[in-house]
Amino acid sequence: MTISARRDRLRQRLADAGLDAVLVTDLVNVRYLSGFTGSNAALLVLAERDTPVLATDGRYRTQAAAQAPDAEVVIERACGPHLAARAASDGVRTLGFESHVVTVDAFTGLTEAAGEQVEFTRAAGMVEALREVKDSAELELLRRACAAADAALDDLVQRGGLRAGRTEKQVRNELEALMLEHGADGASFETIVATGANSAIPHHRPTEAVLVAGDFVKIDFGALVGGYHSDMTRTFVLAPAAQWQHDIYGLVADAQRAGREALAPGVVLRDVDAASRQVIADAGYAENFGHGLGHGVGLQIHEAPGINSAAAGTLLAGSAVTVEPGVYLPDRGGVRIEDTLAVTPEGPELLTRFGKDLMIL
Amino acid sequence: MTISARRDRLRQRLADAGLDAVLVTDLVNVRYLSGFTGSNAALLVLAERDTPVLATDGRYRTQAAAQAPDAEVVIERACGPHLAARAASDGVRTLGFESHVVTVDAFTGLTEAAGEQVEFTRAAGMVEALREVKDSAELELLRRACAAADAALDDLVQRGGLRAGRTEKQVRNELEALMLEHGADGASFETIVATGANSAIPHHRPTEAVLVAGDFVKIDFGALVGGYHSDMTRTFVLAPAAQWQHDIYGLVADAQRAGREALAPGVVLRDVDAASRQVIADAGYAENFGHGLGHGVGLQIHEAPGINSAAAGTLLAGSAVTVEPGVYLPDRGGVRIEDTLAVTPEGPELLTRFGKDLMIL
Repeated sequence: MTISARRDRLRQRLADAGLDAVLVTDLVNVRYLSGFTGSNAALLVLAERDTPVLATDGRYRTQAAAQAPDAEVVIERACGPHLAARAASDGVRTLGFESHVVTVDAFTGLTEAAGEQVEFTRAAGMVEALREVKDSAELELLRRACAAADAALDDLVQRGGLRAGRTEKQVRNELEALMLEHGADGASFETIVATGANSAIPHHRPTEAVLVAGDFVKIDFGALVGGYHSDMTRTFVLAPAAQWQHDIYGLVADAQRAGREALAPGVVLRDVDAASRQVIADAGYAENFGHGLGHGVGLQIHEAPGINSAAAGTLLAGSAVTVEPGVYLPDRGGVRIEDTLAVTPEGPELLTRFGKDLMIL
Repeated sequence: MTISARRDRLRQRLADAGLDAVLVTDLVNVRYLSGFTGSNAALLVLAERDTPVLATDGRYRTQAAAQAPDAEVVIERACGPHLAARAASDGVRTLGFESHVVTVDAFTGLTEAAGEQVEFTRAAGMVEALREVKDSAELELLRRACAAADAALDDLVQRGGLRAGRTEKQVRNELEALMLEHGADGASFETIVATGANSAIPHHRPTEAVLVAGDFVKIDFGALVGGYHSDMTRTFVLAPAAQWQHDIYGLVADAQRAGREALAPGVVLRDVDAASRQVIADAGYAENFGHGLGHGVGLQIHEAPGINSAAAGTLLAGSAVTVEPGVYLPDRGGVRIEDTLAVTPEGPELLTRFGKDLMIL
């Protein structure tokens, strides 16, 4: 079973780290390791025991049993302290905790509940590191999320949704409705629709600005399916397209291709960023690309690994990442092209499949 | 100016608590106290100085200057540690921090940056307590958020959107699109549409379940406008309505009215809950109302005060709260009726105005 295999990997890491158990309190990590999606939960995973203990409150009694059938479920509102005490009574002496998630106040509660026999050890990012490598069930959900976004954008374009006279907000509203129609549970983050000079703002939010002939229209959006996020950016031109728009678009497309082609297991993350960034720098636009190349994506829209010039480490087989270079010319317009891809030994698998040739609408 | 008045209230509390300054790292609290909405920020508010220091990173240079014109803006990716060091160099000796928000790892970073001269003091909930009392600008945004939700639901009903044969998801999709059309920036939380027996599940998520004649259809949703959340639940019947449905609906409506009428400055929160709950208990359905009566609403969908049987404290003039009793009959159906209201000395101001007489569609 997939989810128990995730816990097996974690338990191996506990053994390697000399920990008797880890108390997982980040809700995304609880979901990853148990399947449970409620809004109040904690999970105790013991190195020596196959069955984890899932704590949640009475609202979720039925849901917890259904979603996490192989966990021992305990109903208790104060999930973290309860499991800290449980760990102590189960003989745990060294207990990992998510020090990057647990607040100072909450940590006081955990240590008081566990008592003096338990030594707490920071285990920041231990579960996130596992999540960086997706299993087959996760990849399938990512494919579905990307497919829903692809279908929605295709539908939007086919029905003439990108045309002069509409506002950024109208485009966003239609695109988000289309994602739902194509099977998304929702948008995976706040949709960006940026027209004309607004396209030069990397994270512009949709306004009442009206699409005008000759505008770049940059759309950065994603679908959420089964908890998994897709992430894609496409930039269009409303006819007529000027030569500078062709030039910038072609440059970003080249840089994006270089970034995609650099994706392979074992490659240094900084080098992936550099492969794409160099194309833009060689054309003299280094200062117009002010953000990282990409990021991991999965149960969160931004997760490990970061792909940027300061990133440490290498790319792992089975990770899912974005490649999203951009060139932004203040007060004129900007282009970003972004895909979500899975990294495999056979080369990257493109998950967002909407075309990347410049579309002049 | 409204936002500086918020900081004045905070600075008075700092003085009362003997703190030289407070380091605000919760992003909602940063927004409340500065107007800045970026995703990476911290704010240093000094008891003795009118101008706060806002730290954010380079992506937000322009936005920070525009949204927080009366703050000193410093550009620095590690916002919290930077401001902790700044506090130390400005002579702060007692520094409040948000111990309910700051993680164990982040706190290590703060103390290392500040050095040994600074004594950190837990200031959990200090800003949230201020936020409980809304100012006029906040109330106006809440009114607009509630009006957008009202208009969307009205539109949905008028166009026959609630009819046998549709799925819960279709209803959600249309309602969310209508909120955007009526000026919402988005949904304020995951919309609940629950038909038939699903309506007996307090927090059911929309599925492919089909609306059928005779069903209760329970819709719990809200609009987001300018960062402020509305929250409303209405329950309909698809004709024909059975007698038990009339009875349950009438009971919940009576309980909801009792809860609304109990809202007044100075009233003990538990007593508001009890005023509504007693109506349901008297009818023999105490066990079918398993959640609290309501909660504060504002920059977050759930904020202070909680209105439930365990709540401490009293209701404050200027707070905005929900009143949302329900009766849930497992495997049959349930009714919840919820409004968002502002508490004033002249009586509660109803912000969600969609009618509450039983609509049989």
